[in-house]
Amino acid sequence: MARIVWRNITSVVLPVSMSMVWRTRCLTLIIMTNGSEWGKRTWEVSQSINEIHSATVDIVNFNDIELENVYLDWVGNCDGLRLKAGSQQQLDVSERIARLVASDLVFRKDNRTTLSRKDWFKNTLRKAAHAWKRIIELPLSEQEAFMLRFFVDEPAFTDLHWGMFIPTIKGQSTEQQQQKWLPLTYKMQIIGCYAETELGHGSNWPGGLGKASIHGVVYARLLVDGKDHGDNGFIVQHQSFDDHSPLPGITVAGIGMKFGNGAYSTMDNGVLRFDHVSIPRDQMLMWVSQVTREGKYVQSDVPRQLLYGTMVYVRQTIVANTSCALSRAVCIITRYSAVRRQFGSQDDIASNFSTLPEAHACTAGLKSLTTSTTADAIEECQKLCSGNGYLCSSVLPELFAVYVPACTYEGDNVVLLLQIERFLMKTVSQLGSGKQPVGTTAYMGRVEHLLQCCSDVQQAADCKMPSQEESFAELSSDLVETAVAHCQLIVVSKFIEKLKQDIPGKGVKEQLKFLWNIYALFLLHKHQGEFLATRAITPKQASLSSDQLRVLYAQARRNAIALVDALNYTDHYLGSILGHYDGNAYPNLYAKAWEEPLNDTVVPDSYREYIWPILKQQLRTSRL
Amino acid sequence: MARIVWRNITSVVLPVSMSMVWRTRCLTLIIMTNGSEWGKRTWEVSQSINEIHSATVDIVNFNDIELENVYLDWVGNCDGLRLKAGSQQQLDVSERIARLVASDLVFRKDNRTTLSRKDWFKNTLRKAAHAWKRIIELPLSEQEAFMLRFFVDEPAFTDLHWGMFIPTIKGQSTEQQQQKWLPLTYKMQIIGCYAETELGHGSNWPGGLGKASIHGVVYARLLVDGKDHGDNGFIVQHQSFDDHSPLPGITVAGIGMKFGNGAYSTMDNGVLRFDHVSIPRDQMLMWVSQVTREGKYVQSDVPRQLLYGTMVYVRQTIVANTSCALSRAVCIITRYSAVRRQFGSQDDIASNFSTLPEAHACTAGLKSLTTSTTADAIEECQKLCSGNGYLCSSVLPELFAVYVPACTYEGDNVVLLLQIERFLMKTVSQLGSGKQPVGTTAYMGRVEHLLQCCSDVQQAADCKMPSQEESFAELSSDLVETAVAHCQLIVVSKFIEKLKQDIPGKGVKEQLKFLWNIYALFLLHKHQGEFLATRAITPKQASLSSDQLRVLYAQARRNAIALVDALNYTDHYLGSILGHYDGNAYPNLYAKAWEEPLNDTVVPDSYREYIWPILKQQLRTSRL
Repeated sequence: MARIVWRNITSVVLPVSMSMVWRTRCLTLIIMTNGSEWGKRTWEVSQSINEIHSATVDIVNFNDIELENVYLDWVGNCDGLRLKAGSQQQLDVSERIARLVASDLVFRKDNRTTLSRKDWFKNTLRKAAHAWKRIIELPLSEQEAFMLRFFVDEPAFTDLHWGMFIPTIKGQSTEQQQQKWLPLTYKMQIIGCYAETELGHGSNWPGGLGKASIHGVVYARLLVDGKDHGDNGFIVQHQSFDDHSPLPGITVAGIGMKFGNGAYSTMDNGVLRFDHVSIPRDQMLMWVSQVTREGKYVQSDVPRQLLYGTMVYVRQTIVANTSCALSRAVCIITRYSAVRRQFGSQDDIASNFSTLPEAHACTAGLKSLTTSTTADAIEECQKLCSGNGYLCSSVLPELFAVYVPACTYEGDNVVLLLQIERFLMKTVSQLGSGKQPVGTTAYMGRVEHLLQCCSDVQQAADCKMPSQEESFAELSSDLVETAVAHCQLIVVSKFIEKLKQDIPGKGVKEQLKFLWNIYALFLLHKHQGEFLATRAITPKQASLSSDQLRVLYAQARRNAIALVDALNYTDHYLGSILGHYDGNAYPNLYAKAWEEPLNDTVVPDSYREYIWPILKQQLRTSRL
Repeated sequence: MARIVWRNITSVVLPVSMSMVWRTRCLTLIIMTNGSEWGKRTWEVSQSINEIHSATVDIVNFNDIELENVYLDWVGNCDGLRLKAGSQQQLDVSERIARLVASDLVFRKDNRTTLSRKDWFKNTLRKAAHAWKRIIELPLSEQEAFMLRFFVDEPAFTDLHWGMFIPTIKGQSTEQQQQKWLPLTYKMQIIGCYAETELGHGSNWPGGLGKASIHGVVYARLLVDGKDHGDNGFIVQHQSFDDHSPLPGITVAGIGMKFGNGAYSTMDNGVLRFDHVSIPRDQMLMWVSQVTREGKYVQSDVPRQLLYGTMVYVRQTIVANTSCALSRAVCIITRYSAVRRQFGSQDDIASNFSTLPEAHACTAGLKSLTTSTTADAIEECQKLCSGNGYLCSSVLPELFAVYVPACTYEGDNVVLLLQIERFLMKTVSQLGSGKQPVGTTAYMGRVEHLLQCCSDVQQAADCKMPSQEESFAELSSDLVETAVAHCQLIVVSKFIEKLKQDIPGKGVKEQLKFLWNIYALFLLHKHQGEFLATRAITPKQASLSSDQLRVLYAQARRNAIALVDALNYTDHYLGSILGHYDGNAYPNLYAKAWEEPLNDTVVPDSYREYIWPILKQQLRTSRL
């Protein structure tokens, strides 16, 4: 019988130890004819399918995307201002399941942030097992079961099983394959994950892979008799049914802590490596194309792009769930804002600040500008590393979490900007009295000239000040933008002043000038709306500055490594597996993964307690 | 002898249990003449000062802010591209201390993210004690000690002691007070924190207060014979010298886990409450104003604004440290980017995507737009709660940490946008061939009309396409903006389509229209630069739309609570102490604080091990 066998054709870029991790460029499939023990074992399992009748669940089919539903699924049967998901029936289910979860102590959420990595994972396994037990006991319909997992509200391996593994089998396998695999998955006699990722791309961390799952859909390049047939999907078993240990030739492990308190650290995102592992031919997902018993590659008449069907399906789900995540945060902040006490406009500090000297206003403003910019930029750096940026070993999560409170401590940045604005308004309003503004506000001495440059105002007095609290409040969002612009002006002009001085070190001044150019043009580009609306620049000038910025960006890319090396940070201080001076990010990442606490044991500590009873259909009699 | 006594004049808004927490509006000071045991104890301590000679450290004085230093302190003695802080001497010190820390196993950082709350705190106490031991043993100068704490690289109670408690005493007490207190603080015979905050404002979490510190600078309103003399600073002891337990009348505790992995959860940010606590009169910081033995309030001739000197000083420090935090993230991401492998332009997936049908491009684009928007907005919500938004009990940290990976999994958002852009370019380039764009790209069928509306291009063929990879790369930042605009157009137009249909529920359609208006005008305002630069709108129109947006914002504020209540989220699902339906945010916050693991014991577990030896000057002989 034909077998599909993994073979290593590692590229030279990646170290050998990484060569078979995850997907496409590092993996190859070839057709061979020799069998294996593991192939047989899988086959025996498949023979028992006949005993299992198809689950009665009704999973939503993968249809064309319905955009109305994607965006507006929270608009339905409403009374007055009651906007809520779907029909009255959906609303009733939702409320009933929410109560069910809230009243169950196993699902309590209030203690989870204080746990350690191992306890986080264990707690999640327990919740997943308990959830499945309740689903079977009651029993719940598929819709109700979905709602229950939603309200349990913790990333878990089951998300991948129900959200990616099953939809992939439904969307990309033949009728015959579905008959074999779906009943197993619906009963959770097997637990699956979705291993389509690669080093350095995407999330880079197949969830559920490291410890919980038995099977995965693995995407790999298919070679038949040396001919490359591109990416194809395969159902691969990687852990044993007997004791949950990795099967021969397979290395699998968790990859470590992720960003945040609990968050994805409840999940066993994993690394996977194959060494001459064979799988039955019919575990290739064969709806789009197949390999015959004779080793012939045959394409069906369905579009090859449907190989990416799961990806598109999951993206659709992500879009649909967006409103839920955001509305939750908005709900919290809105309610809190309604009861919150803060310095009012009549408060000591606030009014003291409006009379503070320029130097005090300057530090307040710079504090606001620099901390906001820094927090946003650290987060941007984190996102730019994709999945690896969320690994604690990249240290970016900690940098961000340590830094972002700076936006609110020692003066909330928004409140500070409003105080700066009051100070600026006061400074401008005193211009007519002959009181000359000093320091970083000196430019306001030329206010009449400035106003004439960019608007039809002719003298300082024409520049109306909101004299009342109401108008101040109404204009607050505009005033904040003005305060930001004032702070940016300070930075840009201090930068220029410095560049006019002698700066020791060969080439240093040139590099600083270059960076200043980028910074100033970036600000101009970012805020071109304000510059254009006030006619401070013409559309032609805006376009020219954007062109120039683009040229400078290209130059910056070439010097980037030299510029950051010049910061002289040691590897210990940086503390990041991605930012080592030697550039060996991938080997270091791989080595680091093995240090994660979950990898202390090959089989997770709570396997017998929370996974085995699911797989063996023993949940009813187990104590969770 | 006159005493200053705390008295509760709680406001009606706050529950009694909260009434003496932290500052100004909830606390009052009045002058009384009766003494107390605690007052005596403090006095005895002060008598032992003569035995202590002044430490030889040279702490930088609080001078006027030097802006050049704030921003450009990383430019100094450099060779070629070697940009680094300060002089060659500073650079040498920095490198030496960095090596010292990196080679010391107590300061290892690689294992800290996996710890639980209690272990985080214990680990930090250990590092702080060990750092102080090394500083004394070697000994290190103040500059070197500062560098050592910097490289230890973990928020700790010592940050508050050295960074706020001492500078406040230096900046706001008399010569005589400094002689009494500074030697104690320099030797860490007392450990201090800085308690100027209030519920709902600022960070709301005095660091070092909960468990580690003995003293704090507390800001409170001073009443003398019923007359209000505004905010003043006082040195207040809250824990016992004997066993570190809270002094009579004082309640002090940690407030719980904070955002991130480790991060500020290494710190014992605390809550403080007074119940008829008296302190010696001379523990009022008396440089700016004082109360005489006879109970008379006297102002000195220094500006009263110097009361906020510490705040300004700390803000200056924050600004100066900004570049360090950001440059560290940039260093990591730049090095990683240089070695990172990603889908190239020739890659299967990328090129497959350029030929994908419109529905696939649409999900990819919406996935990118909605997840980026959501992650940013959750973070914005977190910031808007100030310090309380970083408390795990607000649930916002977890919402953010769980959500933000959505920006990179299932297709990195930036990569997706580039793919969309290729798809859009291809769609436009095929217009001449008579192939009509469909679905969400249908509007491109009117491309000639669209181009004429906003530029001098007259026909489709004039619209030049970059045909080469180089030009595509050069234009990538502009193309990404175009792709975002396309996705925003999809959302706005689908929203309109929905609003044209019947929507059940009284008043629902009006509210949706209102929200749509805000969303569309917000986009117009946010991107007015592009609209103006392409002359799609006039400056006058931009101004009008901003005016209208301002009006709508005001209306939205009035309906905000009703709109979020309509989401129908249960308190259990929201899981946030700030977002309870009942609006009792403050009592809930206060109650929740007591549940934090550090509060299992009044005195922290590791007090004898890591704090006592510091205070009793026994570090040399202690094993850490």
